[in-house]
Amino acid sequence: MNFLTQGENPFSLDNIRRTLVRLEDTIIFALIERAQFAQNNDLYNKDAAPFKDVTNGRTFLEHFLWETEQVHAKARRYTSPDEYAFTSPLPDPILPSLSFPKFLAPNDINVNAQIMDLYLQHIVPKICAEGDDLNYGSAATRDIECLQALSRRIHYGKFVAETKFRSNPKEYSRLAHEHDRDGIDKLLTNSAVEAALLQRLHRKALIYGQTVEGPTADEHQTTQLKIPVEVVVDLYKTWVIPLTKLVEVDYLEKRGLEWDGNVDW
Amino acid sequence: MNFLTQGENPFSLDNIRRTLVRLEDTIIFALIERAQFAQNNDLYNKDAAPFKDVTNGRTFLEHFLWETEQVHAKARRYTSPDEYAFTSPLPDPILPSLSFPKFLAPNDINVNAQIMDLYLQHIVPKICAEGDDLNYGSAATRDIECLQALSRRIHYGKFVAETKFRSNPKEYSRLAHEHDRDGIDKLLTNSAVEAALLQRLHRKALIYGQTVEGPTADEHQTTQLKIPVEVVVDLYKTWVIPLTKLVEVDYLEKRGLEWDGNVDW
Repeated sequence: MNFLTQGENPFSLDNIRRTLVRLEDTIIFALIERAQFAQNNDLYNKDAAPFKDVTNGRTFLEHFLWETEQVHAKARRYTSPDEYAFTSPLPDPILPSLSFPKFLAPNDINVNAQIMDLYLQHIVPKICAEGDDLNYGSAATRDIECLQALSRRIHYGKFVAETKFRSNPKEYSRLAHEHDRDGIDKLLTNSAVEAALLQRLHRKALIYGQTVEGPTADEHQTTQLKIPVEVVVDLYKTWVIPLTKLVEVDYLEKRGLEWDGNVDW
Repeated sequence: MNFLTQGENPFSLDNIRRTLVRLEDTIIFALIERAQFAQNNDLYNKDAAPFKDVTNGRTFLEHFLWETEQVHAKARRYTSPDEYAFTSPLPDPILPSLSFPKFLAPNDINVNAQIMDLYLQHIVPKICAEGDDLNYGSAATRDIECLQALSRRIHYGKFVAETKFRSNPKEYSRLAHEHDRDGIDKLLTNSAVEAALLQRLHRKALIYGQTVEGPTADEHQTTQLKIPVEVVVDLYKTWVIPLTKLVEVDYLEKRGLEWDGNVDW
């Protein structure tokens, strides 16, 4: 989403949904690109030679991510309300601040640690060949693309949550005061939307993951898929949707507790 | 290509071709990702406020690219024989060197300046909406992906050229001594392969550029393409193939002139 130029209401559910659907493509592209390289588990092991001498107690991925995030922080990436850094400390931006429209209530919800864990434990082993191909920089660069896209997607739940809160503030507030997190979860869940999302992902993984062969082949012929379709669907079903829900419920519980009854948004 | 683990001959024409075909996907994905954002021409103007105060005479893209390449250089990216940096100076790697198999003859052919020019003049204006959406970091990050993939693709011509040289060293050497660049071009050109490439690209751009809609739509229904198919085909036809040829002919002319007649490769 472009918070700055997207007309009167960049935070309408329609605009938010459009961003989430587009992010599915970005996530699938990033996974396909990562899948070119072997697992390269040394990237994720802080004691692996030859990295341990140069990464100061971090894994190579963490070190490379930290260096990359420093560059991006200087370009004010993490001043945007939909960008969340994985590492710290990070330098201040060298560019002047942009005035983002105020929408979210103040909060410090950040599930990047869980995103890193699920990505390394459940995604890399399922999309990459076993073993080590020495393409460390290439693999880590793609890891960063995957992680950043997943982080943006999952923390986008805050925008969904705020929009839903504004549509029914009294009920969310009542549930928050009762600490009824299941009730909040139930109230914000739209099962039809979730089912449609998983079907759409299935088709995207089939379409974007095609290996397009020579010119004489049928347009839809594929010899193999670059990543298993079910990995993409499972990624969302098992991890992305539940983690997004966690972000949403955390946000709504705090939001509901702190709401002062004012509906002049 | 993985030069280090791809069996006995990582430089067979089959292996080189596989890498080139796979790079088409990477280039198309990168273009699709860039096309989400407006042209943002201030990124490419070294006098644009607010960048001119912080980028020391570079454009914002050049500055951001330089910072990114510094991070990648430390991770030994530019020690790989298929990676070419756009900026300088760059720091030494912090990781120990890898022993890449020796294949190319020494040369300093680098067409990254031409790649930057063609990308900014002919690609960005054709795939991105006019104007400015303030998504500078996002756009520049995608620019870097596009530029790096194009650079890798075009400089890969050196591997093609060396392989072709070894298959017919006497003839290439004869043409080189006559400075017959057209003759070298003709000898290395395989028109059928080029025609097949353009047809394959057309289909890839159609398939990967689809906007996949909701679950009830037909699997192959699209409402719009994320980038125009003809831009992808033209990019290759007008720029990538001719620039690759330039790299190949430059390489082969020098190679042929310096060849000592030894065929013990």
